[in-house]
Amino acid sequence: MELLKTTGVVVNEDEALDIFKKHGYKVEGKTVFPTEAQLQKALASAPAKFTIEARNPKKSVNIGEDDFAFFPGYGAPYIITAQGQQREATMEDYDTFCKLIHTSKYLDMNGWMMIEPSDMPVETVHMDMMLSNMLLCDKPFMGSPSSRQGALDGIEMAGILWGGKDKIIEKPVSISLINSLSPLQFSEEMLGSLIELARHGQACIVASLIMAGASGPVTLAGVLALQNAEILTGIALSQLVREGVPVVYGSTSSAMDMKTGALSIGAPELSKNVNYTAQMARFYKIPSRSGGGLTDALYPDAQAGAESALALYTAARNGINVILHACGILGSYIAMSFEKFLIDEEVCGMVRQMLKPIEISDDSIDLDMIVKVGPGGQYLTQAKTFKLCRTEFFLPDLMIRTNYDNWEASGKKKVHEVADNKLTQRLAKYEKPDIDPSIEHDLTEYVNSRKIS
Amino acid sequence: MELLKTTGVVVNEDEALDIFKKHGYKVEGKTVFPTEAQLQKALASAPAKFTIEARNPKKSVNIGEDDFAFFPGYGAPYIITAQGQQREATMEDYDTFCKLIHTSKYLDMNGWMMIEPSDMPVETVHMDMMLSNMLLCDKPFMGSPSSRQGALDGIEMAGILWGGKDKIIEKPVSISLINSLSPLQFSEEMLGSLIELARHGQACIVASLIMAGASGPVTLAGVLALQNAEILTGIALSQLVREGVPVVYGSTSSAMDMKTGALSIGAPELSKNVNYTAQMARFYKIPSRSGGGLTDALYPDAQAGAESALALYTAARNGINVILHACGILGSYIAMSFEKFLIDEEVCGMVRQMLKPIEISDDSIDLDMIVKVGPGGQYLTQAKTFKLCRTEFFLPDLMIRTNYDNWEASGKKKVHEVADNKLTQRLAKYEKPDIDPSIEHDLTEYVNSRKIS
Repeated sequence: MELLKTTGVVVNEDEALDIFKKHGYKVEGKTVFPTEAQLQKALASAPAKFTIEARNPKKSVNIGEDDFAFFPGYGAPYIITAQGQQREATMEDYDTFCKLIHTSKYLDMNGWMMIEPSDMPVETVHMDMMLSNMLLCDKPFMGSPSSRQGALDGIEMAGILWGGKDKIIEKPVSISLINSLSPLQFSEEMLGSLIELARHGQACIVASLIMAGASGPVTLAGVLALQNAEILTGIALSQLVREGVPVVYGSTSSAMDMKTGALSIGAPELSKNVNYTAQMARFYKIPSRSGGGLTDALYPDAQAGAESALALYTAARNGINVILHACGILGSYIAMSFEKFLIDEEVCGMVRQMLKPIEISDDSIDLDMIVKVGPGGQYLTQAKTFKLCRTEFFLPDLMIRTNYDNWEASGKKKVHEVADNKLTQRLAKYEKPDIDPSIEHDLTEYVNSRKIS
Repeated sequence: MELLKTTGVVVNEDEALDIFKKHGYKVEGKTVFPTEAQLQKALASAPAKFTIEARNPKKSVNIGEDDFAFFPGYGAPYIITAQGQQREATMEDYDTFCKLIHTSKYLDMNGWMMIEPSDMPVETVHMDMMLSNMLLCDKPFMGSPSSRQGALDGIEMAGILWGGKDKIIEKPVSISLINSLSPLQFSEEMLGSLIELARHGQACIVASLIMAGASGPVTLAGVLALQNAEILTGIALSQLVREGVPVVYGSTSSAMDMKTGALSIGAPELSKNVNYTAQMARFYKIPSRSGGGLTDALYPDAQAGAESALALYTAARNGINVILHACGILGSYIAMSFEKFLIDEEVCGMVRQMLKPIEISDDSIDLDMIVKVGPGGQYLTQAKTFKLCRTEFFLPDLMIRTNYDNWEASGKKKVHEVADNKLTQRLAKYEKPDIDPSIEHDLTEYVNSRKIS
């Protein structure tokens, strides 16, 4: 609060500055100086939980309180192939991720920019991605915050999908990622998007990614103070635009690697920050967001497995509500890997099972059976074992549970090789979800006409 | 409690039965039926925390309350090599693990049976292992619970190392693993060991490994009830032998894999059980024990990384005090891997860093610096960044933090390949810790004379 009073936040967006001024915020040039009372009022109007509606109503996703949702990786320019080769990502890769997310047992949400397609014009690719999202997958999706116009395109398309923009203003059908520009700035693109999205009732994540020691203090306590000032300013703007619009408190701040000067997202400091970010959001009674299966590794090896599992479990265990980057990320956000996507997905399933409470009841303990089996007896042939053995335990699709001899006989496959095989099988079985052909036509037409204009 | 009253626990050890009888426990044949009051009395005398003394006093280890300690893998008959080949473990492998543990930044304790040496006579190998422990590593170690005589050999050798058995009776210098034989039994070997170890003031872990659906109920609630009956009976015996002797409440119960009928230790059910086991031990105010870096994978791949990290972090995060199997295990306990040992070790370091609280103070936030840097500034050249950059962040030894081009140029090494290189370097630098030559002589003589007899 002291920081916001003395230093303020630089807001590179004219309408945003006007909105702050109109609501009595102190503004000098492009710098806004929110007071504690102003921020408290904004925080009070932001909901503690909300639902993002899916076009398949069974797949709508609750955000907030004790629920958590897994989202795919976000923003990678490259693919790292099964052979460990890095190449530019394409629109075809994007569609493949939409298909995997549609058929995923564990991912709750579609993303918006799982990868950046290199083979599409940059001015309109946001609409190609949105169209694939809407047609190839019936889960709720992330919105397009590429610019004010980008956000408006997403809103128009959502309006077509739901039969009118008036249908979506009271129920968000998308959630978009609004990043600050640390330290203590917001870009024009991000705030233009935030204003339009909030105006149309769409949910936003206001997030800060501070690299401790570079774009923020070297101490995590300093990072927490700095990111809090940024995030609260963004959240305040959303509530000034439309009181009560859903918003999420987000961070993936982490450490700089001292040898290379680059961001490290496999670092344990990331997980420490996640813990405190979740606590701050709970304190403010708004949902929280962090990263998920994050790693610095460039291949789905033991490092990728360990770092990603630690970050993902930390997020879920500490009560983060929006777990972005749950699946697929390699190399500190630089690339997505299809094999790692499948491995991470299974880890999501494991984490969900780990955090499901054990039901303690007379029936679940079943003392009578324990007495009947007695000392030295066995439970394998008990009726209850037969009845529950398929539902009580997590059943892995990829993780290898076999002995050495069988493993050797089947070619000593590592889990990333198993994932590579499963990927082909899964895509072969993919079926596009049903959609009203006139809606599909109108969506495609919208994108085509915007490309011409 | 109901279970202990109606069914009881089968105790296959005559002195143990006598001790229970002498203290008024109901005994029928070999079955003991402890009452709630009897168990409560026993639990009340067990300490909430204690210290295991090391011959290097700087390396003594606290067990209990908010402390946790990492122990190496335990009981593996095989080694899986860097090439993924399984072979029988040897005494040389055992010594190598002692050297790695001695030089480990993150493992707190030496084990007792990291592997089972196949090339030594089975009757006396417990002493060879103990001797290597004492000579090659100056951290505290686990005791030998192979049989009553095995336990006594360990106690005699500890007596030599500390200058008399009277020197160790009030301060444990070892901790031994006493397993139940589920359901509801204890073997003669384990209870004979427990009696001797408790009598000589040495700490014990009383642990249960129930395979849900086979040696215990399919429901985790049922497993918790069953393991509790077993563990409390063992703990009671320790306190009847010597009131106040340190004891630990342990479990690595997990699920049966429904496809193979084998134990799965990579299963999320294991981590769920750990959470509740820690809570039970806290309820009884005694330290707890679980597994650590556990996996079903047969190679240090992404599966091994993810499963091990999840299990290890679960243990530490839920307040388990003794984290056994923190490093090296592959293939559901069947093998140790040197490469995985090094990777797990680094994960131990990461988990320790993740759970270290962030210091929140005016100094650590340093508002003045944030104000000085201001919006859009950078922190890289701040004096504080220079000062803290080597201590504030975790510095990895193995985990790769580089970009794709550098990674490609250096041969696209996976983390298990990096570990393989580091292993050779580390063993080349190993130096045996100093020990009084007369003690070394007496220890060696003890083992030799026992081998002849």
